[in-house]
Amino acid sequence: MKARVTVKLKPGVLDPQGRAIRQALETLGFTGVEDVRVGKVIELELAEGTPRATVEDMARRLLANTVIETFEVELA
Amino acid sequence: MKARVTVKLKPGVLDPQGRAIRQALETLGFTGVEDVRVGKVIELELAEGTPRATVEDMARRLLANTVIETFEVELA
Repeated sequence: MKARVTVKLKPGVLDPQGRAIRQALETLGFTGVEDVRVGKVIELELAEGTPRATVEDMARRLLANTVIETFEVELA
Repeated sequence: MKARVTVKLKPGVLDPQGRAIRQALETLGFTGVEDVRVGKVIELELAEGTPRATVEDMARRLLANTVIETFEVELA
């Protein structure tokens, strides 16, 4: 089975990578870009029947830094 | 309006970050993790009415390296 964990910075946490992308897009001539935030997607191939709680545990313990990041788990 | 660009490594492209995560999960006692792939999510706040083609153009020219990465655009 597949699981996808999306990790994003919490609102209010500074995102220098997003800011750099915004400026680069402007330099390339893309106008109207108001904000850019960058996150991670971690796709896991897991043993069949792995419960959501286990994936959430993985996210909390390793994949996300919950002080500054939030995460979302999707199972497929 | 919001747009989300998800950038993933193409299948077959080595993912050392994913491999490191897999090993770390194993070290933490999570068993049955067969594969881990890491990608990026870029969330853009754009001017109302920005066409999908423009976002795809941003992805092709800046956000993804299309030699080794694929991208997906979602508009919201």
